[in-house]
Amino acid sequence: MPGSGIDVFVILVYDVNVKRVAKVLKTCRKYLNWVQNSVLEGEISKANYEKLRTELRRIIDKEEDSVIFYTFRTLKYSSREIMGVKKGGEEIFL
Amino acid sequence: MPGSGIDVFVILVYDVNVKRVAKVLKTCRKYLNWVQNSVLEGEISKANYEKLRTELRRIIDKEEDSVIFYTFRTLKYSSREIMGVKKGGEEIFL
Repeated sequence: MPGSGIDVFVILVYDVNVKRVAKVLKTCRKYLNWVQNSVLEGEISKANYEKLRTELRRIIDKEEDSVIFYTFRTLKYSSREIMGVKKGGEEIFL
Repeated sequence: MPGSGIDVFVILVYDVNVKRVAKVLKTCRKYLNWVQNSVLEGEISKANYEKLRTELRRIIDKEEDSVIFYTFRTLKYSSREIMGVKKGGEEIFL
């Protein structure tokens, strides 16, 4: 697909009803790396970012759940620090 | 204070034992805006960012709790999208 190779850095935070947590997490993990409790991050193509959003839109209850997507074109001006336990896996941030 | 006026954009996500949630949230809200469940964000001075970290370091249990700080020198290359319910208050992102 033209243009689908362009990557975005995504930080995703969800706050969904416990009934849908497993499904939301499973879907997110297809595209992103789990960082902490309800946080995932990763560098993905714009095409995959669209897929992820489409899939989540079908799973969540818009009246009750909330998913925040922070997207970045570059990580040049950013950094990440973890205080306490490191709970997640892979990292894209320094 | 010299240099204390320089601002950073912070996204903070915490995953702490329920015993310390109230105290952590109260401390974070002194400096940042609550966005969702365990997520806060805001534009703060470097001096306040240091204060926030010092206070949190005293509250959390490093063996059990986790706090992630994403910091950004500019929001020029970033955006935020909320899917579902908007649970928080003020915003710094578009």
